[in-house]
Amino acid sequence: MTADEFVGALRGLSHRYWGTHPFHRRLHEGSLSELELRTWAANRWYYQSILPQKDAAIISNCPVPRIRRQWLTRIVYHDGAADGEGGHERWLRLCEAVGLTREEVLDERHVAPGVRFAVDAYVTFARTRPWIEAIASGLTEMFSGHLMRRRVTDMLSNYPWIARADLAYFTNRIDAVSGEGQATVDIVVEYCTTRADQEKAIAALSFKCDVLWSMLDAVERAARKE
Amino acid sequence: MTADEFVGALRGLSHRYWGTHPFHRRLHEGSLSELELRTWAANRWYYQSILPQKDAAIISNCPVPRIRRQWLTRIVYHDGAADGEGGHERWLRLCEAVGLTREEVLDERHVAPGVRFAVDAYVTFARTRPWIEAIASGLTEMFSGHLMRRRVTDMLSNYPWIARADLAYFTNRIDAVSGEGQATVDIVVEYCTTRADQEKAIAALSFKCDVLWSMLDAVERAARKE
Repeated sequence: MTADEFVGALRGLSHRYWGTHPFHRRLHEGSLSELELRTWAANRWYYQSILPQKDAAIISNCPVPRIRRQWLTRIVYHDGAADGEGGHERWLRLCEAVGLTREEVLDERHVAPGVRFAVDAYVTFARTRPWIEAIASGLTEMFSGHLMRRRVTDMLSNYPWIARADLAYFTNRIDAVSGEGQATVDIVVEYCTTRADQEKAIAALSFKCDVLWSMLDAVERAARKE
Repeated sequence: MTADEFVGALRGLSHRYWGTHPFHRRLHEGSLSELELRTWAANRWYYQSILPQKDAAIISNCPVPRIRRQWLTRIVYHDGAADGEGGHERWLRLCEAVGLTREEVLDERHVAPGVRFAVDAYVTFARTRPWIEAIASGLTEMFSGHLMRRRVTDMLSNYPWIARADLAYFTNRIDAVSGEGQATVDIVVEYCTTRADQEKAIAALSFKCDVLWSMLDAVERAARKE
């Protein structure tokens, strides 16, 4: 495949992205109950919290200093430069806005087994597969900017108790993702030059779509059960 | 063990540190041939080059944001903030000072199998063992400040073609190690509170002493063979 065909094939997976999951549709249209919103936020925290460990696994497997240097900024993005900063802190604020205490989020009592399995599978993938496949799995970022922009608008209009400041995770992330998304595509195109490598990158992105989709399946069921 | 007894037990391993290895003794007293010096520098490059990946493995396994944040600075220390900066660059300059081209260092043609096995075992340890054991294995830093200070003096007086600027890796590292060494001890003491944990930390440091010692054994043999 040429670079354009390859990127086209990756983009072609957009329908598998969790943007179209029934639970996300309901989140956007404002029909989630407060319990459902809380279940969603607390479960997604588990995903957020693991991202630095996933990214460090990629760095650990990567022998290219330039890529390591570039990837390191992701860890800093989520962990922040100090306590009370960074993407994690912004997610915790959203959790508080939907009525969760910080304690019940951090002790992971609401995390559904299915969410844990999916997220852990993502970390295991990053730890055990070649670094370029693990980077390719993160290409769901290509699809996320659009979804997050819509989310901010939809959540503000449909859940009146949520303020713009509570959505800082998303407003902040939209900018980060637009830059990171292209940088990630560039790395994947640079290093996947054979058909076999390209197929593996597509499979990695497909796997990541499954991870995210399974998370929402499990969140949906967990909220029904509570 | 109390914290003091524990730290004492760790310090008690200092005689196993590679400072007393015959090859290091000869390095310091000025009796290494240029071939031996080059073999040493080129082989140790392999160790240096892998450290960011080892440290990223620790971060990948560590669920504590505060520790991850602290550990991240080590990756930046070696990889630098840009090409041509950082500990790796300083090591490459030392390699050039002893007569190696950058190319023959980077392509690892001089790396002895025994060095590769020892270094790879260190990375595997960091990837597969609990993060606190991997951190404890790095406590050889407790012993290295003194050795490096002596090295700079000894190398300058015994190898007249080596200039102070060529030893920037060591002069720079002495300062870094004095701070990092204590910070690492603090983490290990904080997280190893049971006798079993303390024993594992001591075993980890012992393992790391074996890694370093084996490296010099292999370097010694490789220089004899060439």
